[in-house]
Amino acid sequence: MSKRVAIVGASGYSGEELVRLLLQHPYAELVAVTSRQSAGQTVGQVFPRFASHPKARALRFTEPNVAALVETADVILLALPHGVAAEYAVPLVEAGKVVIDLSADFRLRSAAVYQEFYGHPHPAPGLLATAVYGMPEVYREAIRNTRLVASPGCYPTSILLPLLPLLRAGLVRPTGIIADSLSGVTGAGRKAEVDYLFCECNESLRAYGVPKHRHLSEIEEQLGLAAGIPVTIQFTPHLVPVNRGIHTTLYLAPTTAFTTAAEAAVIGERIAACYAEAYADEPFVRVLEGKALPDTKNVVGTNHLELAWRLDPRTGRLIVLSAQDNLLKGASGQAVQSLNLICGYPETAGLVP
Amino acid sequence: MSKRVAIVGASGYSGEELVRLLLQHPYAELVAVTSRQSAGQTVGQVFPRFASHPKARALRFTEPNVAALVETADVILLALPHGVAAEYAVPLVEAGKVVIDLSADFRLRSAAVYQEFYGHPHPAPGLLATAVYGMPEVYREAIRNTRLVASPGCYPTSILLPLLPLLRAGLVRPTGIIADSLSGVTGAGRKAEVDYLFCECNESLRAYGVPKHRHLSEIEEQLGLAAGIPVTIQFTPHLVPVNRGIHTTLYLAPTTAFTTAAEAAVIGERIAACYAEAYADEPFVRVLEGKALPDTKNVVGTNHLELAWRLDPRTGRLIVLSAQDNLLKGASGQAVQSLNLICGYPETAGLVP
Amino acid sequence: MSKRVAIVGASGYSGEELVRLLLQHPYAELVAVTSRQSAGQTVGQVFPRFASHPKARALRFTEPNVAALVETADVILLALPHGVAAEYAVPLVEAGKVVIDLSADFRLRSAAVYQEFYGHPHPAPGLLATAVYGMPEVYREAIRNTRLVASPGCYPTSILLPLLPLLRAGLVRPTGIIADSLSGVTGAGRKAEVDYLFCECNESLRAYGVPKHRHLSEIEEQLGLAAGIPVTIQFTPHLVPVNRGIHTTLYLAPTTAFTTAAEAAVIGERIAACYAEAYADEPFVRVLEGKALPDTKNVVGTNHLELAWRLDPRTGRLIVLSAQDNLLKGASGQAVQSLNLICGYPETAGLVP
Amino acid sequence: MSKRVAIVGASGYSGEELVRLLLQHPYAELVAVTSRQSAGQTVGQVFPRFASHPKARALRFTEPNVAALVETADVILLALPHGVAAEYAVPLVEAGKVVIDLSADFRLRSAAVYQEFYGHPHPAPGLLATAVYGMPEVYREAIRNTRLVASPGCYPTSILLPLLPLLRAGLVRPTGIIADSLSGVTGAGRKAEVDYLFCECNESLRAYGVPKHRHLSEIEEQLGLAAGIPVTIQFTPHLVPVNRGIHTTLYLAPTTAFTTAAEAAVIGERIAACYAEAYADEPFVRVLEGKALPDTKNVVGTNHLELAWRLDPRTGRLIVLSAQDNLLKGASGQAVQSLNLICGYPETAGLVP
Repeated sequence: MSKRVAIVGASGYSGEELVRLLLQHPYAELVAVTSRQSAGQTVGQVFPRFASHPKARALRFTEPNVAALVETADVILLALPHGVAAEYAVPLVEAGKVVIDLSADFRLRSAAVYQEFYGHPHPAPGLLATAVYGMPEVYREAIRNTRLVASPGCYPTSILLPLLPLLRAGLVRPTGIIADSLSGVTGAGRKAEVDYLFCECNESLRAYGVPKHRHLSEIEEQLGLAAGIPVTIQFTPHLVPVNRGIHTTLYLAPTTAFTTAAEAAVIGERIAACYAEAYADEPFVRVLEGKALPDTKNVVGTNHLELAWRLDPRTGRLIVLSAQDNLLKGASGQAVQSLNLICGYPETAGLVP
Repeated sequence: MSKRVAIVGASGYSGEELVRLLLQHPYAELVAVTSRQSAGQTVGQVFPRFASHPKARALRFTEPNVAALVETADVILLALPHGVAAEYAVPLVEAGKVVIDLSADFRLRSAAVYQEFYGHPHPAPGLLATAVYGMPEVYREAIRNTRLVASPGCYPTSILLPLLPLLRAGLVRPTGIIADSLSGVTGAGRKAEVDYLFCECNESLRAYGVPKHRHLSEIEEQLGLAAGIPVTIQFTPHLVPVNRGIHTTLYLAPTTAFTTAAEAAVIGERIAACYAEAYADEPFVRVLEGKALPDTKNVVGTNHLELAWRLDPRTGRLIVLSAQDNLLKGASGQAVQSLNLICGYPETAGLVP
Repeated sequence: MSKRVAIVGASGYSGEELVRLLLQHPYAELVAVTSRQSAGQTVGQVFPRFASHPKARALRFTEPNVAALVETADVILLALPHGVAAEYAVPLVEAGKVVIDLSADFRLRSAAVYQEFYGHPHPAPGLLATAVYGMPEVYREAIRNTRLVASPGCYPTSILLPLLPLLRAGLVRPTGIIADSLSGVTGAGRKAEVDYLFCECNESLRAYGVPKHRHLSEIEEQLGLAAGIPVTIQFTPHLVPVNRGIHTTLYLAPTTAFTTAAEAAVIGERIAACYAEAYADEPFVRVLEGKALPDTKNVVGTNHLELAWRLDPRTGRLIVLSAQDNLLKGASGQAVQSLNLICGYPETAGLVP
Repeated sequence: MSKRVAIVGASGYSGEELVRLLLQHPYAELVAVTSRQSAGQTVGQVFPRFASHPKARALRFTEPNVAALVETADVILLALPHGVAAEYAVPLVEAGKVVIDLSADFRLRSAAVYQEFYGHPHPAPGLLATAVYGMPEVYREAIRNTRLVASPGCYPTSILLPLLPLLRAGLVRPTGIIADSLSGVTGAGRKAEVDYLFCECNESLRAYGVPKHRHLSEIEEQLGLAAGIPVTIQFTPHLVPVNRGIHTTLYLAPTTAFTTAAEAAVIGERIAACYAEAYADEPFVRVLEGKALPDTKNVVGTNHLELAWRLDPRTGRLIVLSAQDNLLKGASGQAVQSLNLICGYPETAGLVP
């Protein structure tokens, strides 16, 4: 039952987390890691924190090579920049392999929207229809049956998981949605740029990508599918000095207006029931109770997203807050969830505790 | 022309900044500092970073005592908890002194709103009518002529300075306003509570006080005065791991709808003109140009607030972002601005560079 | 083969890590957690990061009670303050239970040294002779056969593991040893004290406990046992703004003097051989090769200690550097190693990856 | 009396601090700033935190050009990489200008030692004899009378100021000295390298440059001059996650042995007297009293170095600890002290409060 797994582009932060998860995975077998800059070195040399793991001492990075990947692996995880991933995905899918792509290349169904947000034509529009958006809470069965998973982005996960059940149930309006997000600096990748130096990020709070961030495209497409009509949202990402974690605050309008605590209580019961139906049995989504609010320190290092909500009778709004680890539920952990589904492993294999 | 200044409750973070500003002030003379817990110690012993300053080595903390303050000082700065400040303000104002209160005790005109938000009757409702909200950009002349300044809170300053000119000019609607704020941990004060320990805040992102924070009362009162009608806003504060700094992102609806870049350009000209009129000559408000967005690291340690704005034709919204040092423009620096106005000093004395 | 394990005093940082390790332990069964302040709450309520774990949702904190512990558990882990731990250890050992104590109460063989460093008589001197110092790399067999383990402190572990093999082999002199250590703030515990507030630790570097820290007593006792003569060292701890991790730099004098690179190479071979003999087969000690130096970020979250060494022909000294997670190899992880040994589990159970 | 000052290479962290200090200097006039990468931009554009300062809005960065500097400025501050500084210093000194060089190019008297530590021949050995080491507490008069100041490095300052008076007085032995230092990340400069990314430094503690750091050369030369014989020390720098600040712990052997508290008291009086004589009248060196130990948070943002000392009768050692801001007393602040001396300004001008 053990599948042979390769990671292409494993030298960034998401790649490192994929390596960590697969080194400790009970069923999958990590057989290859590739990276142009690290080729020839062992996994333990590139990532000293794994240096005591026997496989990390034995396995060496290689140059990425499609033919070798076809030979060696059953499942290939792509942790590559947007645009580069498709170059590998196309021949690997054609060769009958399972591909789980962590880039944005196959997250959109529309090649036109891709071009609008990424500024160049889609490199492989023919594959868009076959790719499945790798969010198991939404597309579990489709993921089990595909050979190409487009694993979601970190901001989209932090916004979609709290929002999709409410939209599908018609509990909130699909208009006027605002998502205000805070992200740790691993979200920027392991890039040698002045903006992400310690002293430029420490003791700094700043927004960026205002008002039109690329991730909007996949967020809005998924929201539109849930709402049944096109959805446009306001999204503001902020960079804050933590290594890992995304915190999102959503400002929503319930479809039923309310101005009193009593009216809020009625709506609150529906929201609670909606989330319970969506997530009570989900292993990686946690709806907080009582006075608790999400805190990234409670989810960093895990594949969990936690969320809480509040109704405000003063404004008639619903506030939903979520926290997750951008590298796990927001990237590599969620990709391993998809891998587990495709390979027929328990969905939580290698992800808990 | 030198006025004698005392600081009551000088052992917290705001108090420490007041001490710093007054030790280096070119005109005002710091004559007394009080603190129950630090009485008997010199300023240099309580705040080691000032230990090389001759006055910090000589001046000792005393127990707070109204009679002694009346004797010693012309201007008294109150850096006390809410509720305690009024106990000092009342007799000191009656004794003819100038009082600049950094607490919330006199920030509201309505004793009823005070009771709603603070949970107990106002301790000195008779003084509310005479207190002036200490925001020089709005109430400069009134500050010059009062004997009781209610210096604004940190979150309110970060929200009001970007928002008031737009509301007064009728450029944005007074409804549906959302303020999403991030604050450094000095905002919680120098209190020995587990929630504010290093390891509970570091690598943590979390909202708090959702959905009804006490600061809403003074924010909404001031917004209502600018709009001419009552204003209710949505405000979500977040605690993030920096020492100092507040970043606020405001979501606003221009009174003129727009859906194209061309329409946005027209509205943008009005906004630019509005801000230029309001702030071009203000020494401590900086409207950023070009692609720059506010970053707390550019204002921490200064009395400046910087702001930028973006119109989003996709959503029809105006986004305004601001950054300031919560202890300076958000507290002690702004209080010294008021002190300068009342004493007839240049408004920037001791505050620049 | 599954043993029933209880944790007494589980609400601090070490206690939280013990809970985490035992929730995921493949053999041991966590049956009870006690804490005066958390009694009545579930583990998931006290530690939100475990809230999705079924056992954390079911298991409730109780008041600590010796009789109940005797009834419920086979092995009791004590995560209590120094002095308090002995009150539980004595009756539990008498009742035939296995006790693993994370406090300093039983780490010394000499009650007199205890009194010198802790300022009061030892609370249970009769048990000192039976307690085993819980450092498996040194006392593996004795741990397997004891019922009372005194699990080592975090600083001592970071100093002893690099130093003991060299002293035992006679490669370094037992005199003039200096240990300069940096510790993350979890080392101070979850105590509500102003000194450990975020804003007092962030952007702060400071030494403390200079020159005589309590941990010296157990360090010097263990060094003396290895050297065969009493050993006195210089130890300076520093508090630095990270959550977790201890970095120690040791300054040592090789017993063979050297002034050239060639002479250093000869001594270096002996040191390399000494460390290889001591640690090549140890699962949790990693001797770095090549140019690599220890970095706490490579060990935090793991039970590994990593070390590297350099000979300096300019000064004739040997520098040894180590890094570990103060809460794992420096506390709870090492305690679980002892638990595994006593219970007959694989020593790495629940600790890797 | 106002001198025209230029800063060459002003886009790094030290350069930024020089700009800040000179924008607010009461006497010196900042007339030019140069930087290849920033040429054409205003100071306010390159450093947004100064954007409200009128001069920062007016003054533009230019390409560095010796002829233009000769024309424009009386004093030139060089904030350039090692090796590059000499290219500017030589022609500027020849043109009769005052040069204050913040690089290592002229800190050594011996060209041979330079070559040993920097790996290439000294670029201008003829100037070494005329350069003065810019540590006013040691070379005040020589600085007043030179035209070429070699401003000291940050680590050297943190080691030399605590150590020189003791060595000169013969109170400590010149052998066996150990300096263990912690540095904030601005010490690495504003370089786009992966090692200094936020996520590589945050939650990381690591030593580097073990055992032979370049700064040793200037440290040992200055110590040798004070001791009257060549001095070799052990120096270990560590990188820790703060923006600014250096903390140094020195391990020293008093020339008089001691093993009791009474003997320590006698030696302690001599040390106290030695420091009092050296530093009681120095504006920027603070010897702490009582139980206080240095903490970088008390000196960051100031030009002060603070130090404390402890005698340990257990080991016979003297421990001296110091803290300073690496960019101020460790670099730009100290350079402005020299500028003040050379220009005949009060030494503290622009540096206090």
